[in-house]
Amino acid sequence: MSMLVNYDEILKLENRFRANLINSLSGFKSANLIGTKSNNGLENLAIFNSVHHIGANPALIGFIQRPDSVERHTFENIIETKYFTINHINVSNFEQAHQTAARYKKNENEFEHCNINAEYVNDFYAPFAKQCEIKIALELADVIDIKLNNTKLVIGKIKFINYPNNIQHEDGSLDLNKASTVAISGLDTYYSTNKLAKLSYAKPHIKLNKIE
Amino acid sequence: MSMLVNYDEILKLENRFRANLINSLSGFKSANLIGTKSNNGLENLAIFNSVHHIGANPALIGFIQRPDSVERHTFENIIETKYFTINHINVSNFEQAHQTAARYKKNENEFEHCNINAEYVNDFYAPFAKQCEIKIALELADVIDIKLNNTKLVIGKIKFINYPNNIQHEDGSLDLNKASTVAISGLDTYYSTNKLAKLSYAKPHIKLNKIE
Repeated sequence: MSMLVNYDEILKLENRFRANLINSLSGFKSANLIGTKSNNGLENLAIFNSVHHIGANPALIGFIQRPDSVERHTFENIIETKYFTINHINVSNFEQAHQTAARYKKNENEFEHCNINAEYVNDFYAPFAKQCEIKIALELADVIDIKLNNTKLVIGKIKFINYPNNIQHEDGSLDLNKASTVAISGLDTYYSTNKLAKLSYAKPHIKLNKIE
Repeated sequence: MSMLVNYDEILKLENRFRANLINSLSGFKSANLIGTKSNNGLENLAIFNSVHHIGANPALIGFIQRPDSVERHTFENIIETKYFTINHINVSNFEQAHQTAARYKKNENEFEHCNINAEYVNDFYAPFAKQCEIKIALELADVIDIKLNNTKLVIGKIKFINYPNNIQHEDGSLDLNKASTVAISGLDTYYSTNKLAKLSYAKPHIKLNKIE
C-alpha cells in the first residue's frame, strides 16, 4: 500500500512527527562533529547532519544553521573567531557524538561531557575530535541567509585535511567505508555502510563499468 | 600514518583528483533522481548527490546547482515550469540512476535511455521515477546565489510525498533502510546501509538509550 501525504496534511501534523518525517525525505545525511573555540578559550563540539559539499575548486563545505538550536554556540564561535573543524563520526564514536546534541550550557565542554578528546593540529585555532579519522580545518568564507525559514547556509574554505594515508584511492577519493564513517537518517538513526560499487564515468550510449 | 594536505597543496592537485578528494570530505551524501518536464513536454531525469534537508516547517528541500553541468537541463526546466520531483535511488536501480549523469542531449529522454519508467501521480506536472520507493513532489520556492563559486542553492517546497506505508515508524520518520535507499560517497561510489541504532533524544548528563 502506498501513502500519499499532501501539503495541507503535512501542515496539520504534530510538530515532532512532522520533523521526523520531513528529515527523512532528503535521503541519507552526513554525520559530522563541528569543533570550535570561543575567543576566551571555551571549546565546543556539536553534531551536525547538514554538512554538505559546496565545491571542489575552491574547496568549500557548508552546513545549515538553525536559528533556535543548541548549535548556536558553534555558530557564535565561528562568527567570533572565523575558524572551525569538521570531523567524520564513525562506528566507534557515534553514541558520544549524538550526546553532543544535548543542550549543554556554554561553559560546559562537550569534549569532556561526551568523552571525546580535543586535539590541536598545526597550531589551528579550533579543536579537532581526536577519535575521528577524517578531519578538516576550515575558515569561514560566507554566511548566506535563507529567508524562507530563517536559517543560514554557513560556508567554510578548507585550510587543511588530515586523514590516514591508507584510505585514499588512486583517483584521490577517500574510502569512507575504510574510515568507518557513518551515515544518518532523520534526526537520530545511525548506519554503517556496505560498498555496492564504484561506477565508471557515465557517457551517453556506453555501458557503465564497475571499477570496484 | 597520517596525511596532512594543506590549502596550497590542494590548489596544486590535478583537477579530477582534487574533485574526487574534496567530494569525499563532507561524508556520505544522499542519492536522488530529480525528474522534470519542459514546457514543451520533454521529460528529464538526472542524478543529484547534493539534495539536503533545509527545514521541516515549512517543509523545504534544497540542492546545489553547478553552472557547467549536464544537470542544467533540470535547472532550466525548474525555472521554466516551477515543478520537480525528488526520488530516492535504491539498491535495485543505482546503476540506471548513475547513467543519467551522462551528457545526453536535451531531446534525449533519460527515462528511456536509462531504463527508468516515468510515472505521473495526482496530475503533478513533473514526472516521478516509478522504480523508486520514496517520491516527493516539489514546487520551486527560492534560488539563492552562492557567489563564492558561482553555484546556486535551489530550494523546493514539498507539495506531496508518496511512500510505501510499511516503512513509516510511529514517530513519523521513514525507514530508509527498508526502502533500500542508497548513500553515495564522492562522485561515483554507492552504498547500502546497516542500521547501527536509533538513539534517544540527547539531554545533558542523562545516558542515551538505543530505541531500536
